[in-house]
Amino acid sequence: MTTPLRQITTVTSAAARAIVDAAVAAAGQPSVVAVVDAAGQLSALTRMDGAPVQAIQIAQDKAYTAAGFGMPTAQWHEVLREDAPLGLGAGPAIDRFVAFGGGLPIVVDGQVVGAIGVSGGHWSDDVKIAEAGLAAL
Amino acid sequence: MTTPLRQITTVTSAAARAIVDAAVAAAGQPSVVAVVDAAGQLSALTRMDGAPVQAIQIAQDKAYTAAGFGMPTAQWHEVLREDAPLGLGAGPAIDRFVAFGGGLPIVVDGQVVGAIGVSGGHWSDDVKIAEAGLAAL
Amino acid sequence: MTTPLRQITTVTSAAARAIVDAAVAAAGQPSVVAVVDAAGQLSALTRMDGAPVQAIQIAQDKAYTAAGFGMPTAQWHEVLREDAPLGLGAGPAIDRFVAFGGGLPIVVDGQVVGAIGVSGGHWSDDVKIAEAGLAAL
Amino acid sequence: MTTPLRQITTVTSAAARAIVDAAVAAAGQPSVVAVVDAAGQLSALTRMDGAPVQAIQIAQDKAYTAAGFGMPTAQWHEVLREDAPLGLGAGPAIDRFVAFGGGLPIVVDGQVVGAIGVSGGHWSDDVKIAEAGLAAL
Repeated sequence: MTTPLRQITTVTSAAARAIVDAAVAAAGQPSVVAVVDAAGQLSALTRMDGAPVQAIQIAQDKAYTAAGFGMPTAQWHEVLREDAPLGLGAGPAIDRFVAFGGGLPIVVDGQVVGAIGVSGGHWSDDVKIAEAGLAAL
Repeated sequence: MTTPLRQITTVTSAAARAIVDAAVAAAGQPSVVAVVDAAGQLSALTRMDGAPVQAIQIAQDKAYTAAGFGMPTAQWHEVLREDAPLGLGAGPAIDRFVAFGGGLPIVVDGQVVGAIGVSGGHWSDDVKIAEAGLAAL
Repeated sequence: MTTPLRQITTVTSAAARAIVDAAVAAAGQPSVVAVVDAAGQLSALTRMDGAPVQAIQIAQDKAYTAAGFGMPTAQWHEVLREDAPLGLGAGPAIDRFVAFGGGLPIVVDGQVVGAIGVSGGHWSDDVKIAEAGLAAL
Repeated sequence: MTTPLRQITTVTSAAARAIVDAAVAAAGQPSVVAVVDAAGQLSALTRMDGAPVQAIQIAQDKAYTAAGFGMPTAQWHEVLREDAPLGLGAGPAIDRFVAFGGGLPIVVDGQVVGAIGVSGGHWSDDVKIAEAGLAAL
């Protein structure tokens, strides 16, 4: 056969921690920040004191959703609004699917190499914290 | 009692692989293609390089939904739109239920003998790939 | 391709109910009796008044285990005792695996066409009830 | 920071299918063969006609276990036998953990690039089928 292997580029653990740290430093309220690798698997996570227990799950699922689909979770709302079957059906059908803001893919040279997910405040605030995390790169 | 047995006609494993291969060959974007048998149980699956991790689950669930209900998953949206209780309730209530396109039953002589599920692009494209898979029969 | 279809022989719903009824009639204590088809999927179930809530699950899993592997669940103990890796590993590794008595495959002309699972008393009593169920065929 | 990225080498989808096909061709009994990528995510699967329904799950979990830990699943038994706490505790504690044979990592140049899992017969036979699959590389 032709070469049976291919290369995946993914964020390192050290970079994931730096991204989490930057997001935590920028957070104005107790939040959970998660970074996943290119495969959508957890690389680093911090739960700030007082962050809601639900945020542990939501932050991870935001990152997972952003990594798999390669786009910010906040963009899903417009997609779902303009596509009635998907709008009705995506939520219950797709495991761990989050269709509101707070998940951002980590894109380097056009490749998705991971994602960050933030949960703790309103999703519009979570997005800003996630952006602050990515600025660490 | 009268005869306690009945016959179920189902797609073979070899046919399932041929259907998957034909769908993969027709796919214009990285997709997951799954074929289930008449009982809705997985028979063959391929994840193309670069297909979203979520598509592994969605493709299987589209096939499962199509096999069980015996109709294309794309037809569910109109059903749900015209039936408010079902429209609101079916998604969360029915395990592995997918109500957008990409799942097609495999029908031979009027019998559902399996189903194909495709996930990777927009559901309208997934449907075309699934149709290309069924053309292998 | 060669013919893409094959035939599965499975127990009918009416036969499944007859088997359940016969097992219930033979039960000396409150039990759950379940019959699954050749694919291991539930066909008929009765919970007798006073049967433990756990028995609803155990009876179904006994039937599922017996249908999939095509042998009485009671035979697993000897298999596991003589095979150390499987003895240690099978229980946690195999979904819905039951390795004690009460599940019997329904075999007709050498083919597994379904299975019965009984739970409610000691497994050795469950086996007798399951056998009484199969005598209805 | 130093470069925030690293490269993962993983088996391609085409190679995964070739490995599955080679294992299926070598199988003396109805089996399920699954290949996962370096991240442990499903890449290709075939269920041969008549393979136990349980094998669909077990084959995938064997591959997942072998990919994650980077060693044949058959080697776990000796590890568990010599480590009482792990021996008792690993099975229930570790998701999708399989500690008997049939899962083999795919190793190229010392790197785990994926894994194969086979289920259908005795685990010692499953191992041989898995080896035949890897010979396709």
